[in-house]
Amino acid sequence: MIEVSVTELRDVVGRELRAHGVADDDAAILIDYIVDTESAGHRTHGLRRLTGMLTATAKTPPSGPVQIRRTSPGVIALDGCGRLGVVVAQRCTDLAIDEARLGGSAMVVATGFRGSTGALGYFTRQAALRGLVALMVASCESGVAAEGGIDPALGTNPLAVSFPHDRTPITLDMATSAVSYGTLQEMAAHGIPAPPSTVVDAAGRPSCDARDALTGAQLPMAGHKGYGLALLIELLAGPMIGGKAGRSATPGSDGLVMVATRVDHFRMPNEIAEETARLLAEIRAGRRRDPDEPIRIPGERSEHARIAAERSGRVLVDELLWRDTRRRAERDE
Amino acid sequence: MIEVSVTELRDVVGRELRAHGVADDDAAILIDYIVDTESAGHRTHGLRRLTGMLTATAKTPPSGPVQIRRTSPGVIALDGCGRLGVVVAQRCTDLAIDEARLGGSAMVVATGFRGSTGALGYFTRQAALRGLVALMVASCESGVAAEGGIDPALGTNPLAVSFPHDRTPITLDMATSAVSYGTLQEMAAHGIPAPPSTVVDAAGRPSCDARDALTGAQLPMAGHKGYGLALLIELLAGPMIGGKAGRSATPGSDGLVMVATRVDHFRMPNEIAEETARLLAEIRAGRRRDPDEPIRIPGERSEHARIAAERSGRVLVDELLWRDTRRRAERDE
Repeated sequence: MIEVSVTELRDVVGRELRAHGVADDDAAILIDYIVDTESAGHRTHGLRRLTGMLTATAKTPPSGPVQIRRTSPGVIALDGCGRLGVVVAQRCTDLAIDEARLGGSAMVVATGFRGSTGALGYFTRQAALRGLVALMVASCESGVAAEGGIDPALGTNPLAVSFPHDRTPITLDMATSAVSYGTLQEMAAHGIPAPPSTVVDAAGRPSCDARDALTGAQLPMAGHKGYGLALLIELLAGPMIGGKAGRSATPGSDGLVMVATRVDHFRMPNEIAEETARLLAEIRAGRRRDPDEPIRIPGERSEHARIAAERSGRVLVDELLWRDTRRRAERDE
Repeated sequence: MIEVSVTELRDVVGRELRAHGVADDDAAILIDYIVDTESAGHRTHGLRRLTGMLTATAKTPPSGPVQIRRTSPGVIALDGCGRLGVVVAQRCTDLAIDEARLGGSAMVVATGFRGSTGALGYFTRQAALRGLVALMVASCESGVAAEGGIDPALGTNPLAVSFPHDRTPITLDMATSAVSYGTLQEMAAHGIPAPPSTVVDAAGRPSCDARDALTGAQLPMAGHKGYGLALLIELLAGPMIGGKAGRSATPGSDGLVMVATRVDHFRMPNEIAEETARLLAEIRAGRRRDPDEPIRIPGERSEHARIAAERSGRVLVDELLWRDTRRRAERDE
């Protein structure tokens, strides 16, 4: 790992995006996203995804601006028109925040984007910072077997939820597969064995080789529960909104669904904040399994890392990845 | 197991409820609930819960009818005024269905009920039969440790989601603990060991004795993921709506949150139905881990059991439980 300044990280990413003809508005969104994920320590979903994004957008450049269709108050459908997943997810988030703050609740969905939507918790967290409870789910390329099956049937279909809590919202961001695809990629790259019950090979046999996830399949989290969640997410982000369903995916057919609602429909914000703080304190004060390991609140570690990065103006990035990105940015300019 | 006629089951449950002074409207809801859960094979949440419900309602009888407060269009808060959880969950469901069919979406929450809300999938399924996607979560007595902790910190906080699919909606109904409390009770009653990583004893040591869940704690499903889901549910059903949060529970402080939205905001119902059917067929046609075990769709087994019970007019119930219930009904009358 190497420590770089946030200014330099923004600059290098910005140059690389401009060199690939990414529009300024889109580039601004992508820079913010990458700086935040690297600051928060979500390294599988940050700078590492930049090359993939640029490849996706180079293959099929955007056909126009994002199309927005408001089907009824608080209900909006976006067609990404080939823009990048992170850009479209940010547009969804901005609209969901505006609609929910105005009307109380919002559902915003999107299809027609290219490449990954990134770490969904990045988006739900923004809504929670504005006083909303937010849920976001997305479908993605099928690589996960159904419970009882061995063929890839569903995406790793992630799920993020954020709940407001001052400047440090509580955020759960999880794949519905046993292990996220990004983590398996890291394992494969470093020759680390995949944990038991997470991967099967092409013949459907249990495997500890993370690379088998590509030719075989990933397994769902917690058996039928993770499979059930993945299927429900596939239905919402697929048949319900017009995204892909199952293996018959074409590029740009992934779907995204965001739901946001004001947290203070029923009680005063200060009552909610007080009881939330009391609950978190109670959980933290409980006896620990390992005395040296504090009990953590979901998203807490990332919030601390963000605060540290903001104070110092510096972030830790993978050294090889950083050199590679800087070299490309210079070459491509 | 013993096969009894649905008519006789309705009759016996009805007599027992009347003998305990349960109001006719409430009794009708409870009878339907118990017949459906027994028909569907959800035996840990059906007839077995009747005694517990009657005890809960005997201790603190309802103080009046359910209070309904509409805070804005599509947003409703119920105070159960001491009525039973299943009754209040049904009232939530009826209101959510009406509001969402009229306005597109609804959020209905409840506190102030006594005893369990029952199997949440029973309620979300009703919404799906009316063309809605529905999510229901509930908090309950704390028995589950936080990830990294060993004290009970959160409820088993279940989560159900249903998606419309003709007469057989797709329903996921799961506890966020590794094993549901009802299943652990069954295991304890029959001397079956609890699976590994599901229970710790009072000293926080891993245990295979299901009874230890009472003095020690249950463990969350899939580690930090189940813990994260349980905490978010506790925040929604607790601080957000005025239900209990954490261990400081008083009777009647559990919370319930239901969200429902029309499935056809973005596309025609027939398009959604066709693609849903295609996805399910694709999943079923995949290679199986065990050639003799079909790949199932969440809720499918229950739907088949319901159809069989409807056709025959008969259901299988636990023989001891049935005799016991019938004896009580006769004695109490």
